[in-house]
Amino acid sequence: MPDAVLDDISHRRFNPLRGSWVLVSPHRTKRPWQGQKEEPSKNVLPAYDEKCYLCPGNKRAQGDANPDYDRTFVFVNDYSAVREQQADYEPPEQNGTLASRLLRAESTTGKCYVITFSPKHNLTLADMPASDILPVIETWTKLYTTHIDPHSPLVHVCKPTHLPPSAHQNGDLVDHAQQQYRYMQIFENKGSAMGCSNPHPHGQIWTTTSLPEEPEIELRHLSQYRREQGGAHMLEDYAKLESDKGERTVYENDSFWAGCPWWGTWPFEIMVVPRAHKRALVDLSRKEREDLAEMIAEITRRYDNLFETSFPYSMGIHQAPLSGTDDEIESSHLHLHFYPPLLRSATVRKFLVGYEMMAEPQRDITPEQAAKRLRACGGPLYRKKLS
Amino acid sequence: MPDAVLDDISHRRFNPLRGSWVLVSPHRTKRPWQGQKEEPSKNVLPAYDEKCYLCPGNKRAQGDANPDYDRTFVFVNDYSAVREQQADYEPPEQNGTLASRLLRAESTTGKCYVITFSPKHNLTLADMPASDILPVIETWTKLYTTHIDPHSPLVHVCKPTHLPPSAHQNGDLVDHAQQQYRYMQIFENKGSAMGCSNPHPHGQIWTTTSLPEEPEIELRHLSQYRREQGGAHMLEDYAKLESDKGERTVYENDSFWAGCPWWGTWPFEIMVVPRAHKRALVDLSRKEREDLAEMIAEITRRYDNLFETSFPYSMGIHQAPLSGTDDEIESSHLHLHFYPPLLRSATVRKFLVGYEMMAEPQRDITPEQAAKRLRACGGPLYRKKLS
Ligand SMILES: O=P(O)(O)O[C@H]1O[C@H](CO)[C@@H](O)[C@H](O)[C@H]1O
Ligand SMILES: O=P(O)(O)O[C@H]1O[C@H](CO)[C@@H](O)[C@H](O)[C@H]1O
Repeated sequence: MPDAVLDDISHRRFNPLRGSWVLVSPHRTKRPWQGQKEEPSKNVLPAYDEKCYLCPGNKRAQGDANPDYDRTFVFVNDYSAVREQQADYEPPEQNGTLASRLLRAESTTGKCYVITFSPKHNLTLADMPASDILPVIETWTKLYTTHIDPHSPLVHVCKPTHLPPSAHQNGDLVDHAQQQYRYMQIFENKGSAMGCSNPHPHGQIWTTTSLPEEPEIELRHLSQYRREQGGAHMLEDYAKLESDKGERTVYENDSFWAGCPWWGTWPFEIMVVPRAHKRALVDLSRKEREDLAEMIAEITRRYDNLFETSFPYSMGIHQAPLSGTDDEIESSHLHLHFYPPLLRSATVRKFLVGYEMMAEPQRDITPEQAAKRLRACGGPLYRKKLS
Repeated sequence: MPDAVLDDISHRRFNPLRGSWVLVSPHRTKRPWQGQKEEPSKNVLPAYDEKCYLCPGNKRAQGDANPDYDRTFVFVNDYSAVREQQADYEPPEQNGTLASRLLRAESTTGKCYVITFSPKHNLTLADMPASDILPVIETWTKLYTTHIDPHSPLVHVCKPTHLPPSAHQNGDLVDHAQQQYRYMQIFENKGSAMGCSNPHPHGQIWTTTSLPEEPEIELRHLSQYRREQGGAHMLEDYAKLESDKGERTVYENDSFWAGCPWWGTWPFEIMVVPRAHKRALVDLSRKEREDLAEMIAEITRRYDNLFETSFPYSMGIHQAPLSGTDDEIESSHLHLHFYPPLLRSATVRKFLVGYEMMAEPQRDITPEQAAKRLRACGGPLYRKKLS
C-alpha cells in the first residue's frame, strides 16, 4: 500500500479514466449479511440442449436455423436494441423554447450481434483452454475489421487475411458497410445474476452510429492525459506502474497486465491492459492475441476458483472507435473490464443501490485485498473441467 | 409525444441534469424473457418481530436498545460506511510521479444514520397514509437542520422550532456539529431486490465531508443552466414544461410535479420536483411538506398497484449541500428520484448490466408508456392496507 492507513479508513479514490470518484469503506466488510442470497448455478447442463437457441443446428426465435458450427458463430440479434434501418427522426430546431432545451433526443441506428464462444452448451470461458478462447478473440477482431471506417488510421492493420478464415462462420459479417458506424461495444453478460438469459457461452456486440457515454468519457480523459503528458498514454503508464508495484496485480504475461484497479468499484473488479500502446484489437499480433486468450482463461478460472462457483460478471472491451478523429483513435488504448457482483461467497453479492445510485459508488473490500485473494487462487479449475 | 416516431425507433435522450445520454429501444419490449426471476415478496410479516433490530424496544447489533418509539426513530448506523473519526491520511504531494498522478485518494469522514418510518415491522410507505409519512419528512428536515453550516444562506430558514418536537426521538441528533459536513444523502432501499436486508420500513442518511459524485454532477449542470438562462432554474422550467405537456406526468398536486422524466433510465423511474424553486427540505412550508407526503403516498401506492406486488426501488433526495458556495446553494433545486428495477411483472426486472455498464444506460419501455400505466393505477392499494 502507498499508505497502510488506507486499509482501514474510509476514503475516496480517483478514477483518472472516467474523472470520477469511488468511496472505499474497508472496515465495513465486517457487516453481517441478512439480505437476498443469489441462487448458485448448478453446473449440470447437457453439452447439447435441443431447446437452446444458440446450440448448433437449432432453430432461433425468428425461425433461422444455426449452422453446424464447430468454434464460434456470429449472427444478428433477433431482438436487437438498435436496428440498421428505421423511420427518420429530425430533432426540432434549437429555437430557444423550453422543450428544445429540456426534451432533447437523437436517432441512433446500428447492428447488434450475438457471438457464441463454443458449440458446447455446458461450457464457460473458465472451462476452455486458451487455445479455444483464441478463435473468440479472432472473431471479435474480424468483426471489428469488417466495420472499420475506410478512412481510419487503423485501416492499414485491418487485413482480414491476418486472421485464419475459420475465425467466423457467418455470412452476416460480409454484407456490412451499408452504413459507417461510430463504435463497436463487445461484451459478455455471464450468469443469471447479470441478466444473462441463456447459459450457452456467448457474448454480444452492439455497433452504433453514436459514441456511447462510457467510451466517450474514457476517450476524453485518455486524450487529455496524452496532451498534458507530452504524448504519454495513461494506460501504458498505468500498466507499468502497477506491474512494478505488484500489490493490485492478479496475473501478468508478456503482453498484458491484469489486476484490481486502484479505482475499481465492484468487489473483485479486474482490468486487463496491454503493456504497450494498442489502439484496438486489430493492433494485436498473433502472439499478443494468444497472450490475451491466456489472460481471459486465467481470470475466468480464478473467478470460479474464488468462491467455487460459476462466477457471474459482465465483461466488456473498450478500444478505438470504428470511425473518429485521428486524436480519438491514437489516444485510444485497448482494455477489458470485468465487473463481477459477488462480494463474500457464491451467494452474497454487492448491491450498488441507494447510496451508490444517488450519491457515489461505494465498495467495502479494498482492491489490494481483492487482488491478493485472486492472486492466490490460480491453478486448475476447482471443478472438473468440461470439454 | 413531441414526435410519435420516438415511440417506435431506437434513439438517445439527453439528461440535462447529468449532461449524459440514455439509449431508448421501444421495439425491444417484445423480447421474450427466459432469465432470472425475482422472488415476489410475500407480505406475511408480523407487526412486531422480536428478531428485528429496528422494532421498538429491541436490541441492536452492537448492544444498544431501541426506545419504545411511536413514529420515527433515528440512530447512528452500527455499520456506518463513513465514521466521524479515523486515522489521518495525508495524500502524497503532486510531485509529478506516475503514482501521484494515477493513484490518488483522499480521506472522507462522516456520519451514517438509519431512520425508521414507523414502529410497525410489516408496513411500507405504500401502506401508510400521508399523515403518517409527514413525520418522516419532518425528521429528515430536522436532521438536515442540525447539520447545516451556520454560514449557509439557508440557515435563516433552518429553525428547528418550525418542526414539531415529536419529529424525532433520538439524542444523536443533538450531539452534532463536531465537524462541518458537506453533503447529506437521504435515501431508501426498498425490497431485497434492492439490497435491503430488513423489511422493517426504514431509510438511511449518509452525511460526508465530501460532495459525492451524483449531486456534484447535478449541481454543476443546475448552476450552468442558471448562468446561461439568466437566472432561470432548470427544474422549475422542467416541472412547468412537463405539467403543461402532461404525457410524462404520473401525479401532481399544488406544490409538486411527479412523472417519468424524459431521460429516465429505469423502466418506471419517477422524479418528484417542486413547482417553485426550493433549495432544500428546509425551504418547504408546512403545506408543502404535506403535499410531499401525499406525493410519496401516491407514488409508492401506484408502484405497488402496477404489478400487484410490494414494489422494490431505491429512492433518494437531492438538495442543497450542507455547506457550499452561495452559487451552489442557490442553484440547488430539491428533488426526489425513485429508481425501481421491475420491468414487466412482479418477477421480471430490468438488468442494467453488460452494455449499460460498459457503454450506455439502455431502456426498452419509453417514459411516456411508463407514465401512462402509472397514471392509470391510482386509487386504493390493491391489497388490504395494513395499519
Ligand atoms: O446498509 P445496508 O442497507 O445494509 O446495505 C445496502 O445499502 C447500502 C447503501 O445503498 C449499499 O452500500 C449496500 O450494498 C446495500 O446492501
Ligand atoms: O440481450 P440479453 O442478453 O437478453 O439481455 C441482457 O443484456 C442486455 C445488454 O447488456 C441488457 O440490456 C438486458 O437488460 C440484459 O438482460
